[in-house]
Amino acid sequence: MGNLPKGTRDFSSMEIMKRNVIIQTIKKHFKLFGFYPIETSSIEEISTLVGKYGEEGNSLIFKILQSGNVLKNNLSSFLKTDPPHQLSVNDHTIKLLTECIAQKALRYDLTVPFIRYVSMHQHEIIFPFRRYQIQPVWRADKPQKGRYREFYQCDADIMSYSSSLWEEIELIKLCDNIFTDLNLPVIISINHIEILKGLAEITGLKTRLWKSFLLSLDKWKKIGKSLVKKEMMQMGVPSKIFEKISLFLEKKKDFFEQERLFIKDFQDSEKGKKGMKEMKWIFQTIQHMSFKNIKLEWNLSLARGMSYYTGTIWEIFLCDHDFHFSLGGGGRYDLDHVFQMKNISGTGISLGLDRIYLSMEKKKLFQHLTYSPSMVLFINFGYEEVLYAYRMIQVLRNNGISTQLYPHAIKISNQFRYANRNHIPFVISLGKEEIKKKKIKVKNLKDRTEKEYDNINMVVHQLGSFIE
Amino acid sequence: MGNLPKGTRDFSSMEIMKRNVIIQTIKKHFKLFGFYPIETSSIEEISTLVGKYGEEGNSLIFKILQSGNVLKNNLSSFLKTDPPHQLSVNDHTIKLLTECIAQKALRYDLTVPFIRYVSMHQHEIIFPFRRYQIQPVWRADKPQKGRYREFYQCDADIMSYSSSLWEEIELIKLCDNIFTDLNLPVIISINHIEILKGLAEITGLKTRLWKSFLLSLDKWKKIGKSLVKKEMMQMGVPSKIFEKISLFLEKKKDFFEQERLFIKDFQDSEKGKKGMKEMKWIFQTIQHMSFKNIKLEWNLSLARGMSYYTGTIWEIFLCDHDFHFSLGGGGRYDLDHVFQMKNISGTGISLGLDRIYLSMEKKKLFQHLTYSPSMVLFINFGYEEVLYAYRMIQVLRNNGISTQLYPHAIKISNQFRYANRNHIPFVISLGKEEIKKKKIKVKNLKDRTEKEYDNINMVVHQLGSFIE
Repeated sequence: MGNLPKGTRDFSSMEIMKRNVIIQTIKKHFKLFGFYPIETSSIEEISTLVGKYGEEGNSLIFKILQSGNVLKNNLSSFLKTDPPHQLSVNDHTIKLLTECIAQKALRYDLTVPFIRYVSMHQHEIIFPFRRYQIQPVWRADKPQKGRYREFYQCDADIMSYSSSLWEEIELIKLCDNIFTDLNLPVIISINHIEILKGLAEITGLKTRLWKSFLLSLDKWKKIGKSLVKKEMMQMGVPSKIFEKISLFLEKKKDFFEQERLFIKDFQDSEKGKKGMKEMKWIFQTIQHMSFKNIKLEWNLSLARGMSYYTGTIWEIFLCDHDFHFSLGGGGRYDLDHVFQMKNISGTGISLGLDRIYLSMEKKKLFQHLTYSPSMVLFINFGYEEVLYAYRMIQVLRNNGISTQLYPHAIKISNQFRYANRNHIPFVISLGKEEIKKKKIKVKNLKDRTEKEYDNINMVVHQLGSFIE
Repeated sequence: MGNLPKGTRDFSSMEIMKRNVIIQTIKKHFKLFGFYPIETSSIEEISTLVGKYGEEGNSLIFKILQSGNVLKNNLSSFLKTDPPHQLSVNDHTIKLLTECIAQKALRYDLTVPFIRYVSMHQHEIIFPFRRYQIQPVWRADKPQKGRYREFYQCDADIMSYSSSLWEEIELIKLCDNIFTDLNLPVIISINHIEILKGLAEITGLKTRLWKSFLLSLDKWKKIGKSLVKKEMMQMGVPSKIFEKISLFLEKKKDFFEQERLFIKDFQDSEKGKKGMKEMKWIFQTIQHMSFKNIKLEWNLSLARGMSYYTGTIWEIFLCDHDFHFSLGGGGRYDLDHVFQMKNISGTGISLGLDRIYLSMEKKKLFQHLTYSPSMVLFINFGYEEVLYAYRMIQVLRNNGISTQLYPHAIKISNQFRYANRNHIPFVISLGKEEIKKKKIKVKNLKDRTEKEYDNINMVVHQLGSFIE
């Protein structure tokens, strides 16, 4: 038997138990905020996904090979084109071949499938539509520590016929409640696409350079000021603007001080003014809210990769001296921008289960958990004895007590060993002797005590008190 | 925005709610029988899957296209082979190409990934190992009513160093408890691979014809006696044997009567005798068990497609006059047979979530369920009013009451309409007037009553009684 493909994983019972702590907490708060659950297909048409995640994203989509006659026919027509493709295997050939032999793909995130869902059901859906979705996604990313090719996202989105910044407030408060409950202190870095566009606008750069400008800005924390400066100077960003940006990024100030830095520059940029106004509304409003756990900070260098964002964008970071670790993110998108649906605006958050898991593991927040498959093991003394015991096994199970029968009548000590290694706390013996005496012998493996009972209901009563 | 690929689906909140009824019931009983949960990767190496599901199964595995440079290099070497492949696109070319450009695949069932898991962790696992797994699987089958390309299986398996028929008994009892709880009466059709092999043996057919013989037998219910007879006569099956088979399949008798039909014929077949002995043990033992809901019947024509089975095989059918509907199946497999792991024997069941769902829907077993995303909607009267209300929204949520704020300050009647259409039972109004009077106005949309409260804790107390 083989191994697992690179970047994929299995989960043991203990890992599932820990992951469930996180999933149940997130789900609880999604529900308390009135989000509906939906689930979408793992498989989407490639055309639904391509073009929504930027250039890099496109190349990381897992495509599914056609099968049977479809594959045969499509491949036939591909190979019979003139001139024959085998002469030059370049990116163009690959693209053409891929289009021939793959039409379906694995979902890359939960936002685009959700938008496809809304587009398919827009006449039945009642807007504003609040949905949550907790499912795996797949990316052909280079595997690294904490980065897998299959991983779970936990998303909550609100879609309305018009946007309301209260939706942003609700999502920020939702994060506050979730991360407080999970015992993880976090910072939300927030920025606004219109501010970024305004910034690009006031640099005086040609529109075709905006993208490089934003990509360069986004790399600030990664490659540092001097390299970003070099890149920006080459593009032709005025040094006055660059100095402002660097002043902003180097000093931690509160929002309103930072706003004053830029307000004059944005005088002539409609985009910039709009973005600033919305950000100001958010920062003013949250002053009236009581956050337990979350700090909100404006980060001008935050740009995020997805090409569907149109308003606020944000990323959630763990507050930790040791590492700067993104636990999720979110933002606002207009559906007519990339998805050809008029007048619908969406906003949402996406939390990464694995990153949250790693953070909680690191902070030793799972230490109280132990896993045991069963409460009781019945020793197998042989055919007649098991027949006698089976009715009692049923009674225990009917009363919610997880019970196993050892399947083989092997040496008793080996059966006890199985119980010990599996952390099964109670072992019941019903051998010839006990059957004759009409007694049920229960051994507690933790405190090594042993007790005999007259009937199974007494055992139920006794063990029932151990179930939470 | 596009559509969904053929044979795939999304699930609405209501559908998720119904599916959860089934999943939670199955999970509960899996746990009560002491099964551990595990989850495996959706993506497996193709080599792990191929050859485990018969010829047809092989062709239904969804394969994933390589990406980036790996695809480019592999494709290059494929296209540069001599003679060039474009001249003849036949099954062989397709096979070669597929091997070049796809090394990974989506899991096809949960049994083979489980065996791969055991093989990878065999030195840590404590045997007998009981695991359950509830996850989607993918098959490139032709979509039909009730047959999808992505569907959930619910599996429970026991793996031991040697086999014990108590494991079969436990799994049959597990099914009894699950389907009793789900209110679905079922029949388990059971057969034994060794009996089938014995039957093939006593026909005197050459070994290479056994497979066709079993395939023919398996079609009995589908194509009928006369066509099966024709096929078998052509193979050279003695008419004496055929008559016995048809006698068996045409008359419903109890196991022990049926056994007498064949016992003499199997005198010289070790395989046949072994299979019969095991079946007899099972039928004798279950006479001592009290089944609530399940009937067990020997079905000589049951063969099942998977090539990994080696002992008992079974299929679970809904007892319904209208249709003969398989809800799941199972069987025993030896790991050294196909998987090169010595001395490990497994047995398990696999329940199909969609089939169970359809059956329950047909029997109207979901009628009592209704879905509402929230208990309370707060009317949005404008910025100042929402700021005032937000603290109370928080109090409700902190007390487990799912609460929404309408995001836009639109006409009140439209906000009420939203609550009505979403089955939200309570609407809270905190307009200028209520704020002045220091009152909280709660409207019950079901009985159309309205009540004013002095503080939010009184509201919590009142609404709390509606939460289950």
